[in-house]
Order: sequence, then C-alpha cells, then structure tokens
Amino acid sequence: MIIRKATENDLSSIVKLLANDHLGKKRECYQEPLPESYKNAFSEINGDKNNFLAVVEEHGCIIGTLQLTFIPYLTYQGGKRAIIEGVRIDESYRGKGLGKKLIEWAVEKSREQGCHVVQLTTDKNRPEALEFYRKLGFIASHEGLKFHL
Amino acid sequence: MIIRKATENDLSSIVKLLANDHLGKKRECYQEPLPESYKNAFSEINGDKNNFLAVVEEHGCIIGTLQLTFIPYLTYQGGKRAIIEGVRIDESYRGKGLGKKLIEWAVEKSREQGCHVVQLTTDKNRPEALEFYRKLGFIASHEGLKFHL
Repeated sequence: MIIRKATENDLSSIVKLLANDHLGKKRECYQEPLPESYKNAFSEINGDKNNFLAVVEEHGCIIGTLQLTFIPYLTYQGGKRAIIEGVRIDESYRGKGLGKKLIEWAVEKSREQGCHVVQLTTDKNRPEALEFYRKLGFIASHEGLKFHL
Repeated sequence: MIIRKATENDLSSIVKLLANDHLGKKRECYQEPLPESYKNAFSEINGDKNNFLAVVEEHGCIIGTLQLTFIPYLTYQGGKRAIIEGVRIDESYRGKGLGKKLIEWAVEKSREQGCHVVQLTTDKNRPEALEFYRKLGFIASHEGLKFHL
C-alpha cells in the first residue's frame, strides 16, 4: 500500500470513489468519458503548489483519496494551515485502518510543510466520521458553516 | 467606506486588528517593527492568485479585514470553494452593519470567481459570531475539527 500524488491517469478512479458514497452519489457524475469539469479541476489542483491531491494505491488499484491544501495566513503570527477535504476509502477496504493511515500521512505532510494546524469540516450527517477524527486527536472546537451559491 | 485588496502598507494595521480580540490577543504579536513572520506570510498571500487579503478602509484608516481563499476541488463535479478566515472589525466600528457588508462582499467575490459554496469555521467560544453568520444565511451543517501541530 502506498500513498502518492495523484496523476491524470488516476482521475477516473478517484471520481468513482467520490461518487460511491451516500452524500457523494447525489453530487458527483461518474461516467466515461468523465465530464470536462473534473479534468479542468484536476489541472488546476495539479498546477498549484498549495494543493496536493493524494491517492492510496494497492496492487495497481486506487483504493483511497484525499486533498490537502496549504494556506498562508496572517493569523497565528503568519502561520500556515492545512485543510483536508474529499477523504474517501473504497468501501471494500474500510475497517482495516486505511483511513487512519491516510489521515496520519496528511498530518505528517502538513507538519513537514510547516503548518501549525490541520483542519477539516465533517458533515453532521456523518456521525461515524466525527468519531473517527476524534479518535485521531482532532478537536471539534468549531462550527463549520456553509453558504451555497 | 471601501473594501479593497490589502497592500504591504496596511500590514501593521491589520495585525493590530487581529491582536485586538479576546482570542487574538493570546495568539498574535503586535509590535513595531512587526515580526518577520507576518511580512513573510503577507508576501505569500499577496503572490498567490487563490488568496485575497481584503481590508475595509474609511478616511484612510483600516477598520476591518478578512482573508478569502479559493480552492479547486474534484468534489461537486470539479467545483471551486471559497473559504473565509481572519475576519475582524475594529471594535469602535462594531454594531454598524460593517461586518455584514464585508461578508456580503466576500460572498459576491466568491460568486464572481465561480465558487459553488463559501465556507468558514467559527470557534464555539464565539456564540455571537455563529449567530451573526446564521443571520446572513450560513448553515451550521458541519463540525469544524482542528488538530494543532
């Protein structure tokens, strides 16, 4: 099992993972060929030094993904933050500690980048995700607010 | 009253605002000359097309600030998100609707950038801030989790 930066060849497998989820299936569009919007987003992510799209690969298959974003801020004396988003583990690989390894990898990567905090929001409709992150040491100190445009 | 992109000349006034806050005063270091870490962070923010540090100016004074970050994601069919952080209004200007104007400006700017959602987290120790954002139409649908490194 390796965790590495995603390439364009992984894109279809990543979208399949994002779509295979009880919230994701309402939001995503997994079909071949993939909608252009995914390809355009991939190019933007891949070309930006502050974004890192990661995949978990085993025996040539993509079985997990997340996106890590580094943001420079003035707050905390000019401290950099890391944001985790789009975390998915293939359903047939869940319950094996893979998610834990992926998040620990992301935390370590954020530390290497000099970030002082790693943050994420999790939908209140995913109580099992909240519990998962709490066990890993994340503190639910904030409300996560969204304004859909 | 105008809202505009911050310049290096505004930096000291912005840090003063960030420090003059019951959570900020524990985290920031407002002194002259400013610690280098603020200057370095400003350069990074200013040089990144996905970050926009805004200030509110009135009669030549900086009376408000926020940082807006645009992030390209694969989720939501390759949708872009906007994140608001570091919102402060000078204490002598509070209660005059300035914060509302600043957030509405940020939402409009995010719409122009093609974002499908504007999001932020607010400390559960700031109940008045939560109420402020709710009134503006933000939905507290998520838990905001932090892992301090």
